[in-house]
Amino acid sequence: MSQLMEKLTQEQQIEVKRQMTLYSQGVQEIIPTEELANKIAKSLLENKPLKIKLGLDPSAPDVHLGHTVVLNKMRQFQENGHVIQLIIGDFTGKIGDPTGKSVARKQLTDEEVKHNAKTYFEQFAKVIDMEKVELHYNSKWLSELNFEDVINLAGKITVARLLERDDFEERIAFGKPISLHEFFYPLMQGYDSVNLESDVELGGTDQHFNILMGRHFQEKFGKEKQVALLMPLLEGLDGVEKMSKSKKNYIGIDESPQEMYGKAMSIPDELMNKYFELITDFTPEKIGMIKNQLETGELHPRDAKMLLGKTIVRMYHGQEEAEKAENHFVSVFQKGSIPEEMPEVQWQGDLDISLIDLLVHLNMLSSKSEARRMIENNGVKLNGNKVDDAQLHLVITDGLIVQVGKRKFAKITL
Amino acid sequence: MSQLMEKLTQEQQIEVKRQMTLYSQGVQEIIPTEELANKIAKSLLENKPLKIKLGLDPSAPDVHLGHTVVLNKMRQFQENGHVIQLIIGDFTGKIGDPTGKSVARKQLTDEEVKHNAKTYFEQFAKVIDMEKVELHYNSKWLSELNFEDVINLAGKITVARLLERDDFEERIAFGKPISLHEFFYPLMQGYDSVNLESDVELGGTDQHFNILMGRHFQEKFGKEKQVALLMPLLEGLDGVEKMSKSKKNYIGIDESPQEMYGKAMSIPDELMNKYFELITDFTPEKIGMIKNQLETGELHPRDAKMLLGKTIVRMYHGQEEAEKAENHFVSVFQKGSIPEEMPEVQWQGDLDISLIDLLVHLNMLSSKSEARRMIENNGVKLNGNKVDDAQLHLVITDGLIVQVGKRKFAKITL
Repeated sequence: MSQLMEKLTQEQQIEVKRQMTLYSQGVQEIIPTEELANKIAKSLLENKPLKIKLGLDPSAPDVHLGHTVVLNKMRQFQENGHVIQLIIGDFTGKIGDPTGKSVARKQLTDEEVKHNAKTYFEQFAKVIDMEKVELHYNSKWLSELNFEDVINLAGKITVARLLERDDFEERIAFGKPISLHEFFYPLMQGYDSVNLESDVELGGTDQHFNILMGRHFQEKFGKEKQVALLMPLLEGLDGVEKMSKSKKNYIGIDESPQEMYGKAMSIPDELMNKYFELITDFTPEKIGMIKNQLETGELHPRDAKMLLGKTIVRMYHGQEEAEKAENHFVSVFQKGSIPEEMPEVQWQGDLDISLIDLLVHLNMLSSKSEARRMIENNGVKLNGNKVDDAQLHLVITDGLIVQVGKRKFAKITL
Repeated sequence: MSQLMEKLTQEQQIEVKRQMTLYSQGVQEIIPTEELANKIAKSLLENKPLKIKLGLDPSAPDVHLGHTVVLNKMRQFQENGHVIQLIIGDFTGKIGDPTGKSVARKQLTDEEVKHNAKTYFEQFAKVIDMEKVELHYNSKWLSELNFEDVINLAGKITVARLLERDDFEERIAFGKPISLHEFFYPLMQGYDSVNLESDVELGGTDQHFNILMGRHFQEKFGKEKQVALLMPLLEGLDGVEKMSKSKKNYIGIDESPQEMYGKAMSIPDELMNKYFELITDFTPEKIGMIKNQLETGELHPRDAKMLLGKTIVRMYHGQEEAEKAENHFVSVFQKGSIPEEMPEVQWQGDLDISLIDLLVHLNMLSSKSEARRMIENNGVKLNGNKVDDAQLHLVITDGLIVQVGKRKFAKITL
């Protein structure tokens, strides 16, 4: 037991253990664990909340469940009285990629940064209490640095250490160029921690290197080192790749209840436990119970998945919508029927139209070639009947129900 | 022949060739030669002088003959109407070494930078016309750069390219650390050339990498690229290592005529041609003649070396001193006699003294143990007679001549 721990009352010691158990849930790695326990102890002794840092890339503000892995962990800290430091990496965003090679790192205007930050906050508000959050824009301190400051910063790290970062190491090995400015992104992230005196920095395991930079630079600047708390990466609906917008394997937290629920049902069985652990607000006990029941066969995987889907919808749309989504799913997919509610389209075009044009006009498919493929693959129904003739012309009647795939419906009114 | 050359009159074409021959004399490498010829042609066509850059490290202002290799080349450009850009690297000097590991790169104050620059200029004035020189302190533009500018600069170069620099490559190979800030010194040198739009940068072959950075960054910033003009490194009096203060194998341009001449006589025979070529103001024709006469035996190496010594003294102290130094050398070393002129010391101590104490008191040797060794090695004479008894006590008489080694004399007066 550390000296610090000995100063705690027995009650406080139990509290440290309780928080440690909570924060360790679902975590990939805490670097180092003892320091986190010490920080919690100190926070109790001094009645001072810990500063929990999360850095945000302002270029991609669409939040999906992959992001909530970290957000849920932040929420746990927040619910125990600690302070969240949200850092918008606007300095980086405003610089963009000076080589102009990376499309992802295009230069953002002040307007865009602000708009994207606002988008983040609206979505984050569904998981954490945004009123208690500290907001920071790192351009505030980074744009103040002059060349001499930058050289002093650079003097505190070696080239070899930077080259240890996996992606740099790989590019060197394969002879792919690394532009020198790229070395500065980890430096900036580290310097943010120096500036904000963060106690803990959260991130996915892919942030391992960058978050350790915070520890490195805090030490070099004579500050107390932050603890790195790394969360596992959440595989997307394909069960293989990290959930991401570009892979189209994500559930966005702004998606409709039906869409969310339907996508949740497509999660591979073997990922279910991980999803329960990382993206729901269930207690460790409840998750343990579910795991147990799945193992013994008491709980059918499909039912567990429906619980997962309902829980996700409940977290982002509330109890009522969660139940509706479940009912919808049951009626459409389990009973194979047409749902009670669906979008209605007031038709204003020609009544005589090819099926392909109709599908594109209704925005149910984005191109004629896609529409053709979908018809040929038996993915289109009219009033519940499959259509497989891609050349079909039809006359639109009032109340016609068009279905694409399993979940897209439209009812036409004249 | 390039398009540019075709625009020149025949007279101008001859002039380009003349200048090219002159500037090529003694040079190790011109990168690339054609561009230098084009720049000279353009300068003639537009009646605009070329800008010839030389960067100076403000931390070591003692100028020795090794430095004059480059200075003599600068002088040739200056004598042909081109403009010398002297750049004091004060920005680098003021930063020092942020890791604090390099003693050579200690942080300099403004005062020190100015004082060292002045010391440079006084010495340079012996070789180039300082009134026609453009003086620049690179802190003027480098201290203006903010973090964003630095990142943009860093975005214009790859890590792999920087690691190509010999010393970096070697340190990586041997696992020795390179601090990230060290990558910025070549960047700064390159950016200086962007800022000053230099046409030619001069330096020793050890500056190969850094001078090419100027070409690299000028191109990246859309400027005309400078030509790198690299001079060979001058070996010092030991004939092995590069002339440098720390190796004590140098002839300083502020040294006394006798010291200069004496040191020149100790240059190894095989280096004589190189010295004539690199540090005298002789024309290529005259140097060719000397080489030729040495080969045929018409000129004795000792006489050639005396010509070299006399020339060096003449360049830094004038004709009269050069002749005096020669006469002194002839009388002391060739005739083995005591020179006509020597420092006189008004004796104020005890007349009864040990020889060892006397040598130390006269500052002719720096410690008793050194004095003892010198006596034991037959290196001390009194009134022209060798003394080999290290225990000798003597009574000082008016006019006593003390000699240490071949060249140190003192005459004591009472």
